[in-house]
Amino acid sequence: MTSKPRKPGRLFFANPGPTNIPDSILRAMDVPTVDFMSEDFIDIYDQGVAGLKRLLFTTGEVFIYTSSGHGAWEATIQNLFSPGDTILMPECGYFSRTWGAMAKRFGLNTEMPETDWRRGPDPATITERLLADKSHQIKAVCIVHNETSTGVALDLPAIRAAIDAAKHPALFLVDTISSFASLEFRMEDWGIDAVVGGSQKGLMLPAGLAFTAVSEKALEAHKSATLTRFYFDWTKMMARRHRSFVGTVPVPPFYGLVESVRLLESEGIENVWRRHHRLAEATRRAVSIWSGNQGVAFFCSDPKRRSDSVTAVKMPEGHDAEAVRKIAYDRFNVSLGGGLDPLGGQVFRIGHMGDLNEPMILGTLSIVELSLRLAGVPHANGGVNAAIDYLAAA
Amino acid sequence: MTSKPRKPGRLFFANPGPTNIPDSILRAMDVPTVDFMSEDFIDIYDQGVAGLKRLLFTTGEVFIYTSSGHGAWEATIQNLFSPGDTILMPECGYFSRTWGAMAKRFGLNTEMPETDWRRGPDPATITERLLADKSHQIKAVCIVHNETSTGVALDLPAIRAAIDAAKHPALFLVDTISSFASLEFRMEDWGIDAVVGGSQKGLMLPAGLAFTAVSEKALEAHKSATLTRFYFDWTKMMARRHRSFVGTVPVPPFYGLVESVRLLESEGIENVWRRHHRLAEATRRAVSIWSGNQGVAFFCSDPKRRSDSVTAVKMPEGHDAEAVRKIAYDRFNVSLGGGLDPLGGQVFRIGHMGDLNEPMILGTLSIVELSLRLAGVPHANGGVNAAIDYLAAA
Amino acid sequence: MTSKPRKPGRLFFANPGPTNIPDSILRAMDVPTVDFMSEDFIDIYDQGVAGLKRLLFTTGEVFIYTSSGHGAWEATIQNLFSPGDTILMPECGYFSRTWGAMAKRFGLNTEMPETDWRRGPDPATITERLLADKSHQIKAVCIVHNETSTGVALDLPAIRAAIDAAKHPALFLVDTISSFASLEFRMEDWGIDAVVGGSQKGLMLPAGLAFTAVSEKALEAHKSATLTRFYFDWTKMMARRHRSFVGTVPVPPFYGLVESVRLLESEGIENVWRRHHRLAEATRRAVSIWSGNQGVAFFCSDPKRRSDSVTAVKMPEGHDAEAVRKIAYDRFNVSLGGGLDPLGGQVFRIGHMGDLNEPMILGTLSIVELSLRLAGVPHANGGVNAAIDYLAAA
Amino acid sequence: MTSKPRKPGRLFFANPGPTNIPDSILRAMDVPTVDFMSEDFIDIYDQGVAGLKRLLFTTGEVFIYTSSGHGAWEATIQNLFSPGDTILMPECGYFSRTWGAMAKRFGLNTEMPETDWRRGPDPATITERLLADKSHQIKAVCIVHNETSTGVALDLPAIRAAIDAAKHPALFLVDTISSFASLEFRMEDWGIDAVVGGSQKGLMLPAGLAFTAVSEKALEAHKSATLTRFYFDWTKMMARRHRSFVGTVPVPPFYGLVESVRLLESEGIENVWRRHHRLAEATRRAVSIWSGNQGVAFFCSDPKRRSDSVTAVKMPEGHDAEAVRKIAYDRFNVSLGGGLDPLGGQVFRIGHMGDLNEPMILGTLSIVELSLRLAGVPHANGGVNAAIDYLAAA
Repeated sequence: MTSKPRKPGRLFFANPGPTNIPDSILRAMDVPTVDFMSEDFIDIYDQGVAGLKRLLFTTGEVFIYTSSGHGAWEATIQNLFSPGDTILMPECGYFSRTWGAMAKRFGLNTEMPETDWRRGPDPATITERLLADKSHQIKAVCIVHNETSTGVALDLPAIRAAIDAAKHPALFLVDTISSFASLEFRMEDWGIDAVVGGSQKGLMLPAGLAFTAVSEKALEAHKSATLTRFYFDWTKMMARRHRSFVGTVPVPPFYGLVESVRLLESEGIENVWRRHHRLAEATRRAVSIWSGNQGVAFFCSDPKRRSDSVTAVKMPEGHDAEAVRKIAYDRFNVSLGGGLDPLGGQVFRIGHMGDLNEPMILGTLSIVELSLRLAGVPHANGGVNAAIDYLAAA
Repeated sequence: MTSKPRKPGRLFFANPGPTNIPDSILRAMDVPTVDFMSEDFIDIYDQGVAGLKRLLFTTGEVFIYTSSGHGAWEATIQNLFSPGDTILMPECGYFSRTWGAMAKRFGLNTEMPETDWRRGPDPATITERLLADKSHQIKAVCIVHNETSTGVALDLPAIRAAIDAAKHPALFLVDTISSFASLEFRMEDWGIDAVVGGSQKGLMLPAGLAFTAVSEKALEAHKSATLTRFYFDWTKMMARRHRSFVGTVPVPPFYGLVESVRLLESEGIENVWRRHHRLAEATRRAVSIWSGNQGVAFFCSDPKRRSDSVTAVKMPEGHDAEAVRKIAYDRFNVSLGGGLDPLGGQVFRIGHMGDLNEPMILGTLSIVELSLRLAGVPHANGGVNAAIDYLAAA
Repeated sequence: MTSKPRKPGRLFFANPGPTNIPDSILRAMDVPTVDFMSEDFIDIYDQGVAGLKRLLFTTGEVFIYTSSGHGAWEATIQNLFSPGDTILMPECGYFSRTWGAMAKRFGLNTEMPETDWRRGPDPATITERLLADKSHQIKAVCIVHNETSTGVALDLPAIRAAIDAAKHPALFLVDTISSFASLEFRMEDWGIDAVVGGSQKGLMLPAGLAFTAVSEKALEAHKSATLTRFYFDWTKMMARRHRSFVGTVPVPPFYGLVESVRLLESEGIENVWRRHHRLAEATRRAVSIWSGNQGVAFFCSDPKRRSDSVTAVKMPEGHDAEAVRKIAYDRFNVSLGGGLDPLGGQVFRIGHMGDLNEPMILGTLSIVELSLRLAGVPHANGGVNAAIDYLAAA
Repeated sequence: MTSKPRKPGRLFFANPGPTNIPDSILRAMDVPTVDFMSEDFIDIYDQGVAGLKRLLFTTGEVFIYTSSGHGAWEATIQNLFSPGDTILMPECGYFSRTWGAMAKRFGLNTEMPETDWRRGPDPATITERLLADKSHQIKAVCIVHNETSTGVALDLPAIRAAIDAAKHPALFLVDTISSFASLEFRMEDWGIDAVVGGSQKGLMLPAGLAFTAVSEKALEAHKSATLTRFYFDWTKMMARRHRSFVGTVPVPPFYGLVESVRLLESEGIENVWRRHHRLAEATRRAVSIWSGNQGVAFFCSDPKRRSDSVTAVKMPEGHDAEAVRKIAYDRFNVSLGGGLDPLGGQVFRIGHMGDLNEPMILGTLSIVELSLRLAGVPHANGGVNAAIDYLAAA
């Protein structure tokens, strides 16, 4: 099909999503067609959805769509709001900016206070804004849990507390696309009203399914939401046997979902979170070393907010992140993430979410170190050693 | 996972979509994750899209979505129309009815002249309506090429001619979901402005991708269409490297699409159409025999409109189609389609589209005959024999 | 890779072995490499072997080889006999003839009384020969349970009784390659001392594994057997953790075996036997009809010995079975078995063993009927109808 | 199936064989059954065998067996020799010892001069022995190219020269199981008469196929060889269409072989050799560092003979290699090879053959370093750094 010579060995996929798909999930999805209305399939389907709810720590409805995460954003807006509704969505990266732009397009009055992308919003500013909203015009606070573009993760319980501090009835909406099944997440304990997620990150499935999990309060809000919708309409979905989807229900992803849940629960979801933390910390130890000699740096300026699922690495002035990515990919078969939009060329991103272990992350970090060296990017050597030291003690 | 005893042998999947997926397509999709922005993937992607255009007989744009066919309907409405626009969409089955309902929901003035579901609209009535529309309020004529729910296929060149006869500038929109790569279809030759299709029928892929192919005239109409859209917005898509998708681009389906195109072109798309006709005709020979003894009947009352991709079989009064389906599925591992919505229990449907050959259809027809007998449904025996006779001569 | 146009739809594989492999077995074998000495693998391995013993109805040793069935024949000879030993092996088809030739090559005194290939040996002749062997020179009676080349299945309990009637201590060796997990088989109940089997028939795995299951008495005989052996040496095998194989232990087939056992036991092995009988009988009803008009005939002349796993169909004088096979394969994608060696061109064989159900066999029989017609071979039509009639009543 | 918690991420398989199987090979083998006598399959088969010959740099016959490498050893002995024949087989590790034991079992007069396992035989001793054999009793010199158990690779052209120096007509037999498609190998240029190989190492296939490639001179010797054989008989094989196998021909491995050849030739076989050298050298740089502090050491004492496909690492006195392997496997999902037989516990082995690249080997070496540390095994840290340094310059 192509005349390029083969690159031997496995591709190390270290983009922050989609993520590596375990072989057993790929095989589970490699199945002949069955009738999505048959009880045999619905049995599989129900198992998958029940598992999804356990992993989200919710007992409410989960609406699933054939779409990417952007579709789930759209579904969530369409089903919860009416034209002219006000929402508060602090902008702290490419994805929160895009979700906000979408809300505007759908006619919402979208307040998007700018924040330092290297740090994200201060919960206190949310309390402040909500306190000022005496007439409760603000219908929802929308937060991207983990900004995939910047590697900044926010403290959701702190934001919940910030809303509570204002005694404000706004819904609390969270995009958990690049944090779900990677970072600790407890929908009901944390008082979250709508959660947007996708199949292609911590769930270790291909892109193609996205979902919104909703609280009772959100379902109630849905009843009076008048934005136009059809493909993503929750009311239509609730009338169907699957309680999700408008139109054809896809089959293979649900075989994959059942296997994904089995894998995550076999490891234990809390162990999954711990593993993400451990491998992320190994990555951070390496980046810390590399940042010597006026070299590369963490994009996220607040150590407490550095994400356990993705690390964005900032280039020194005058160096192009794409050169590093190109060496890693062309010579060593390691795929790193690039900078999105305004960050293009300024950062590369190491994804460390999903189906990952120590040799995978150490192999990846080795190649990042090699590529920095070959690209002539300022850095101190020894990052991999530091990661090994950390893991030996972990 | 389940304690039900295994049903041996292959499931014969004779639902009218999704369809049987060839093993080589399943394997092509059983691949590790790659970066959807990498040139290696874009090379695959471009091959798939180029093939799709060849199979549609178009050289225009094709916008692809992560969605089911309902999503593509929504995309097509959102991108071509403005609130209050009038469209003409003859209702002739479950799917045309649903597409029309969707258009209404989005604020279009949707004219849906009722027709006999067993036959579908008369092109002359379209000419008539368009001639009456002196001020060209009607922006589009929307047709479902092949009503999956009824097994009625319409003559698209005749409808094109009907529009031309009125010298009316309306766009010509076609849903080709259950006809594409099964029935003859030539987008440009037949003057079609927008074609809605999906992955899960003639393309022999799982559900998950849907698309709209558009003419220059439709692209022009898009520029002034003001319906709200984001996830499905063609303008956003055209600005991207892939010229499709808003958000994540799914990877495995494009490996599948390249293989699908390879298979269809290896056989030859005109041979694919001929094969569908031959196997459909074999099916019809069987149904004709069974319709003796005041037995089952063709749902489609017009022999010229009986679809080459699906045959809906009408039950005699007092007999439930579900009983036949249940025997076929539970005892013989053959999955037939049921009646949709108002036709529930009144028809069962034999899908004969996609990756099918003589032993598959004869095995299926044998089980239908067995199941009719075991269910005590009036019919004359010998349907399979008649199919064999036809195929011996074909 | 090839420029031949694609043949659409599934290949119907109706050769009498290898057989159709269920998708779940193929997927189970589609796994990355693991260490065959690791406890994780040995756990899988042990599960597979335990299941194999349950299906054989034995509690003894089973020695497994990376080889085809011919290798297992060789292993069985090498491990049980010494040069010059006499064995009794009635010749009744291509496979018993070959096994006998092999025994001769290894220096055994192999008595191979000729029998009518269309019927096989009479148990009384075995009693007679053993009674004549007053000095117990005959070390073993070797029987091919089911002659794949002729479709003749022998009554093993009757042969056991024939040996017992002579009060002769000979070992009772059985080739169960094309009967295992298809025809009733009970190793211990039937007093069988060594059973030769393979992976590629009733077990529904690819070719590649073969085995010998042995009784205590056979293990005892092994101790004094002096034929040279190494790769197939049971003593070496018993000294290893796996108690099988000399050298590398293959990994994927054991994942497949565990799944095969799961499928067979989910259906129930006695149900598997019953299903084989039912589908074989459907086939025989069709052949019975076709044999009208001085047409094709059963190769097996004794109705009670017609095999439930394969039916050999004899051509009328002057007609070539290969012409029928070619039409079935080239035009209809159905692969039938041909005649082996002296039977080349005189018979074709319909395999009905392994993972098979009603629509598969009816699809196959339909194509056989079509191919007979197109090849101009004398036969009466209506075979498929007769099969349907039988199955409706079964 | 097991209640053990899942180990996340990919298993890093760093055993010296079987090796990592590329996904595209696994998928190519994940195919439904076809008739191994059909022209469609024979086309695939012939492509695979032609490629195998190109990779061996031979134009002669290649006999393929359903067996492990031990079966190919047996085949080679049985087909080339007669009882009492003398062969010279220097013993330098577990595998040469076993092959020699097998030859003795088959009645050959097997001379097995002992050598230092850490270095292997000196070619001069071969010349010497052959010169002493004035009557040319020695029929063959048998060499294991690469001792998988010790990581010692021999210089085949030097051994060829050693035979030539004696002007001795002995056949030159080589076991290339763990060197083929990894180390440079040129059958015809190097005057090799019989080459034993297997599927499960450089060919990156599962175990299950093994082969002997033979020269004209070896084929001539075969004609007068009288050792008993049947399953492995070359004469029988040459009479068959496939020119290999006695009995059933396995299907999936040949789809795999075609893909294997495609991958190797896409990379270029000489590039494959270079890559193996580069990754082996990176491994050696790490081991060299670790060998500081009276730590672990190379088992192979001669730097020029350290294998490019496997490195055996010797433990310091009083330390158990199994403890290191257990940590690597249980905690980090990295499978290393253990010591075989007399070397049990004394060495662990790092396989670096087959489908491998820089991040895979660096990930593996990182875990070896971590495991040495956690096991408290004396070594100097910094091995991975040294490997990175080497690769940066390579």
